[in-house]
Amino acid sequence: METEKIEHYTLADIMHLEKRKKVNMINSLSGFRSVALIGSTDEDKKTNLAIFNSFVHIGSAPPCIGFISRPDIEDRHTVSNILRTGYYTINHISEEMYLQSHQTSARYPKDISEFDAVNLSPEFISGFQAPFVRESTIQIGLHFREQVPIKINGTILIVGEIQHIRFPIGCLCEDGFVDIEKAGSLTCSGLDSYHSTRRIQRLSYAKPYEALKNVPLDYKV
Amino acid sequence: METEKIEHYTLADIMHLEKRKKVNMINSLSGFRSVALIGSTDEDKKTNLAIFNSFVHIGSAPPCIGFISRPDIEDRHTVSNILRTGYYTINHISEEMYLQSHQTSARYPKDISEFDAVNLSPEFISGFQAPFVRESTIQIGLHFREQVPIKINGTILIVGEIQHIRFPIGCLCEDGFVDIEKAGSLTCSGLDSYHSTRRIQRLSYAKPYEALKNVPLDYKV
Repeated sequence: METEKIEHYTLADIMHLEKRKKVNMINSLSGFRSVALIGSTDEDKKTNLAIFNSFVHIGSAPPCIGFISRPDIEDRHTVSNILRTGYYTINHISEEMYLQSHQTSARYPKDISEFDAVNLSPEFISGFQAPFVRESTIQIGLHFREQVPIKINGTILIVGEIQHIRFPIGCLCEDGFVDIEKAGSLTCSGLDSYHSTRRIQRLSYAKPYEALKNVPLDYKV
Repeated sequence: METEKIEHYTLADIMHLEKRKKVNMINSLSGFRSVALIGSTDEDKKTNLAIFNSFVHIGSAPPCIGFISRPDIEDRHTVSNILRTGYYTINHISEEMYLQSHQTSARYPKDISEFDAVNLSPEFISGFQAPFVRESTIQIGLHFREQVPIKINGTILIVGEIQHIRFPIGCLCEDGFVDIEKAGSLTCSGLDSYHSTRRIQRLSYAKPYEALKNVPLDYKV
């Protein structure tokens, strides 16, 4: 890109944008995002499925993933299920199912399961009450641990501890790295742009005044 | 992928992994991540640059981006600068500069600026004290707004309000969407795997019982 020719928006410029343009612009800027389906059930074991794109790695000891929930009704079906039952799943999205996954963001009535509405299959495993998505190649089962309020706009960071991880054989490297590109996971930008990826390379741990090395993908057999 | 053949790790299996394997596995699972350089200065205006990969969209009104900081010394150079000065930048990473960007994660002494160590250029704009990265095509200037402690592991969510956005002409769409793929922004998975992207498509806002449509990229001229 020619970096000399730039557009510059100040906070005042942003605040003057029409609401939809502002939402699209700000949602684009945080960079490429993880995008996945959250599966949950209510007290009557009715299933719910919703797409989220604000996941964040929290830590590996204990193994935790967070996501941001907006304070609106669609997110609340998922969040109220999580707070009441304590369990939920995060399911990666691949090219074979991104249309159905995006469609879960439609505002279906509470009595309709998005699994049925978009034709994805709930999959239960013994001893874990939240539904995984059978069509998803990387599936994570979580136990709710912490709800962190963010004052500036009333959103909530929901933190869960990983209880189960399920992924295709052949995607795990000897050093523990799971190759989510090989598994077909997509990324998104903004609210609605879906992208596949092409690895450039893995890089070695950086040390001062030492050249970085390529880390070959050494799959576990 | 053949989804029938799966590997299954329970929390107990994860806890028994050697530390480095556990770190790599859990860091892979949150999905593709935004990765960017945070530029800051200390009270003496000495510049600091560090790579982070735990950014998350917080909201667009006010326009805010968050990132997770670990409770260790490397992240603390950046976070203590942010808490003391109130200002910092987030700069996307492209294929031309990902090696230098990854190298900023080396543990340089406090008196060495990573800009100098890795040969990236600080760029200042009038009235904003934190340095942008000249080589970065998408540059965001932020004002610190909120520090949110996460109890489960002592990490912190740092939330900043966007004050300035700078990106190449030709990347903005009429509806406000900024095409970060066109600008060359990369994504990462795990701690060290860098990926470029290929757009599948943008999808229309989902409504119940209506087919999704392709949203063409209508660049502003």
